[in-house]
This record gives sequence, C-alpha cells and structure tokens, in this order.
Amino acid sequence: MIAEAAFIDSLRALAHDPAARGLMDDAAVLDIGGVSLVLTHDMIVEGVHYLAHDPAEEVAWKLLAVNLSDLAAKGARPIGVLLGYALGEAGWDRDFARGLGTALAAFDLPLLGGDTVAMPGGAPRAFGLTAIGRADGPAPSRAGAKAGDDLWVSGTIGDAGAGLALLQTGEAGPQGLIERYRTPRPRLEAGLRLAPLVSAMMDVSDGLLIDAKRMAVASECALTLALDAMPLSEDYLALRGADRDARLDAAAAGDDYELLFAAPPGMAARLLALAEEIGLPLTRIGRFASGAGLTLIDGGEELALPARLGFEHGA
Amino acid sequence: MIAEAAFIDSLRALAHDPAARGLMDDAAVLDIGGVSLVLTHDMIVEGVHYLAHDPAEEVAWKLLAVNLSDLAAKGARPIGVLLGYALGEAGWDRDFARGLGTALAAFDLPLLGGDTVAMPGGAPRAFGLTAIGRADGPAPSRAGAKAGDDLWVSGTIGDAGAGLALLQTGEAGPQGLIERYRTPRPRLEAGLRLAPLVSAMMDVSDGLLIDAKRMAVASECALTLALDAMPLSEDYLALRGADRDARLDAAAAGDDYELLFAAPPGMAARLLALAEEIGLPLTRIGRFASGAGLTLIDGGEELALPARLGFEHGA
Repeated sequence: MIAEAAFIDSLRALAHDPAARGLMDDAAVLDIGGVSLVLTHDMIVEGVHYLAHDPAEEVAWKLLAVNLSDLAAKGARPIGVLLGYALGEAGWDRDFARGLGTALAAFDLPLLGGDTVAMPGGAPRAFGLTAIGRADGPAPSRAGAKAGDDLWVSGTIGDAGAGLALLQTGEAGPQGLIERYRTPRPRLEAGLRLAPLVSAMMDVSDGLLIDAKRMAVASECALTLALDAMPLSEDYLALRGADRDARLDAAAAGDDYELLFAAPPGMAARLLALAEEIGLPLTRIGRFASGAGLTLIDGGEELALPARLGFEHGA
Repeated sequence: MIAEAAFIDSLRALAHDPAARGLMDDAAVLDIGGVSLVLTHDMIVEGVHYLAHDPAEEVAWKLLAVNLSDLAAKGARPIGVLLGYALGEAGWDRDFARGLGTALAAFDLPLLGGDTVAMPGGAPRAFGLTAIGRADGPAPSRAGAKAGDDLWVSGTIGDAGAGLALLQTGEAGPQGLIERYRTPRPRLEAGLRLAPLVSAMMDVSDGLLIDAKRMAVASECALTLALDAMPLSEDYLALRGADRDARLDAAAAGDDYELLFAAPPGMAARLLALAEEIGLPLTRIGRFASGAGLTLIDGGEELALPARLGFEHGA
C-alpha cells in the first residue's frame, strides 16, 4: 500500500494541468471551445473488481456504469465511450458485447472507439473504459466543501457490499442486493440536477467512510459523519438488521455508486424537494467544520473509526 | 481469429455515431464546440505488445507513443492523456512512472487522469492509455483514398520488427533497430503538416501490407504496392540486406509507427518539399485504382501476397 501511494504520488507530479484536478477528482475537466469536457477512465479486473463467474453481460454493464458514475458526480451528460478490451473465450466475449450493447442503449450512448487485444492464455482479464461527457453547468470538484456545509448522500449505502458477500458465501438473500453489486445504476439525472446546488460532489465507489474522508481531506475541512443517519435499504435491513456492526459494514463496503455531496444548510429544502421530484432519496449524513479529520458518531456517541474505511487505491 | 472478427463486428454495431468512424479509423473525431476533438485508446499487454524484460521506462514511452501515433495520423495536436495502470512490482512501477514522466515531458503533455488497479498475483499486466488531441484543420480518415491517388509512407519500414527479432534471438545487431522497437517516435509534426495535403491517412502499426490493405478496403479502391519502392534504413540494410525476403519481412513486420497516406499525383512536389523541410523521408510506394484488392509488385513483377500481411486485430 505504501508503494502504491508512492506510485500515485509520482503520477500526481505529471498531472500539472489544472484540468487534471491533481488526480484528486473522479474525472478530468477540460475546457474545449468553451465546453467543459469531462473525461474519466476506470478499469475492472477479473478476480478483483468482478467475480470470474459473474455473467459477462453484467460485467459489461458494470464497466460502463462505474465510469458513468464518475461523470454523474461532475454533473456531466455522457457523450460516448472508448473501450479497451482483452479478448478471452469467444462465447464470453459475445455475451460481453451483447451486454455492452444493452448498457449503451440504456444510456443512449455510442461506442466511439478503443482497442481489442489478446492476452496470454489463462491470464485474468483487464478491461478499461473511457467515458466522455460534457457539463453544461459547473462541474463540482470533490474539493469544494466549506465549513458549515452538510454532507449528503443519494440512495442507500451497503447494498452492493451485502450482495457481494451473498455471492461469495453462497448464502440466500434478497436478489436486489446482488443486482446492486452487479448492475449499479449511475446517478446521472441526479448528478445533472445536483451540480448547480452543491459545493462539492463525488461518487461513493470505495466505501462511504473512505470516500467521505477523501472529500474532507480534499476540501481541507473536518467532517463529522452520523452513522445512524446513513440510509439503508429494506433489503439490507432484512438481511443484516440495523445494529452498529451492520451499519459499520455498510459504511465501509464500497461499490455503492451513489452521489456524495456537500451543500450549505440553506439548500436543504431544495434538495429534499429535488429528491421527491426525481424519486431518489437524498439524505443528510454529516457536517463539515473547520479543522481536519473524520469523526464518526452513532446515537450521539463518538465511535473509534474502524481499521478499514473502504477499498484503498488499486482494489 | 474468426471469433475475434465476429466480436469486433458486434462492437461495430454499437458504434453508430459518425464520430466513431465505424471503428475503422485510428481514432474517434468528435465535434465539441466547433473543435475537432480526436480521441484514441490503445492497450499494451505484457508478453504480447512488449517483452517482460523490456525496461519499464521504455514500456511507458511505447504506451504513450503508440497512442500519439494515432493522433498524428489524424493531424491532431495532443492535449493530454488518461492512464489505466495495473500495479505490479514496486520498483518496476517506479521506473514506469519515471519513464512516463520523461515521455510526457518530451511531448509537453499533462497526465489528466485515469485509474490504478491491482492485478491478481503473477498475472501479466495490461495497460491502457487514452490520448486526447485537437485537429485545427481536417482530420483525414483512412477511407478517403481515391482511384489515381499515390500511396506514400513516412520514414523507413521494418526497423522495429528487426529490433524485436534481435531481442528475441539475442543476436547482435544495430542498436537503432532495437530503439525503433522500444521507443517509437510518433510522427506528430509530419501528421500536422500532412493533414491538409492528403486524401487519407493512418499509421502503420500492424504491418505495412495489412495496414495498406485496410486503407484500400476502407476507401473502396484497389491498391498496387511496389515492394522495391519501400524505404529501408541503413541499419535494416546492414542487418538484413535488400533481397526479396528481407523486404517482405519488413513489409509485414509491424510496430513501425510511420504515417501511411494517399495523395493525388499533383501533390508530389509539395510532399517532397515538405519531407526536406521536416527532415523526414516521404516515399511514394503505390497507387490506388478503381476496383478492389491489394497487388504487390517487385521489379515490375507481380508477387503472390505472403500468407501473413501483419498482425491481425488483438495482437
């Protein structure tokens, strides 16, 4: 992990253009002819980001969705994608192409280009996708939260992590949790509507706690997060209940692909009205203050932070 | 190979936007606020596109160079890149980051973003790079050649393939050939200057014969290519001589990263003057005609096409 952090630091030195946002953001934001072009590239690796027996169609969906989630967090409307594809078994590849077609059609997007490569036999496969979008308004960074802002999150947290656990253990449980893991829904409409209202925004991909901490660090603020305010789904509550362990697991699980954003308290009524309008819960879960550090509270009581806040870089 | 072709055909069905150029071109060309944005994504895989013992710095150079070569072929000026990086051994990663820094600095480019992922232990690594450029003039496609146009190529052909053979056999030979394999020079300046003069352009990455055939197919023309006109370097001639086998090997070797372009015969004097000016040979090697098919001639005699014209997709 220390070597990985050093590697990423050495890349950061190459990201001197303001469009790169110091590699601290979900996406690069480039001014092209007066248009804010938003660019992101995420990879998924067999055995790391998806399970070898996950259906190929759903791996394709996930590869697209995780990238569109980054665009959503910048309030961008996707324009198209480039695919980097490692060929494998022909039937799997055919299913992947069909799944990618379904996913692109769901978001009305074209494939613009990319590359197809052979891998040495038996090698785990790695896929990359570059998503290109345009932000017609501001493209909020994750560094804009101000002391006094509330921290909000869309949807529910922990479902995908619980779904992954069901797949790994083979236990029975609500299918909706597995769907959240395999076919996340990028919050594009919410991102477009939220972008003009928020002071900072990012998506929750590595875990609510670690991602919230990253927003606080990037914004040079302290953050208090209320574990008991964190939104949990009916499915999650049915499987795991709502005790502290269940809530801590959800908060560090990752793969949520929800939007995490900061907004001044005066914005609350508008945000709650927007949630009604778009049919997606938006929930206040914390508060930024001057200073530094992440504090976790539950029922008014301060908790020690868990050792693991989510996935670190590279996982 | 048939399965791969079917897979690529199924992707082509998803590339319905004109910007995708039917996935037949080196890059996507997108109109953004009146600017022609050129986007390309190439991957390189350990053991397929580079040798496991190639120095990490030079793998980084190559990853950047192969993508910039696609921009060069569209007459685009690069703006920045996104990196998809599979972490490996810490020292190798450090050298890669240093090499990427050197390469980006050589082209005065920023790293804009990307992703860093862990691979399962021992897996061959795959890297992707997305290069973004802008074409301030026309972005020639590979489909624009007309019957009567000449086919031209920049630089010399076959050097990289000979360098790879030296590395694979351990034989002694000119270091310049190995450099051509490990650290190709994208012809950015030539691409910018050629774009307004040509009717079609692409880069030679998979082999002169296969790439020339692709241009002819995309342009719906027949093409006659003169093997004896193909430019060979002093290094290549010193190692391999100029007999027919040596020339056929060069023509199918790949990894040249030269520019291949079509232009009306009346453009010849301007092209030769440009070659003088930029210090890069531009050589007429063929002629397009109405019809279809690739014909190879050598000393006025028609040759059977070799079984292998270059690398097929995926290699």
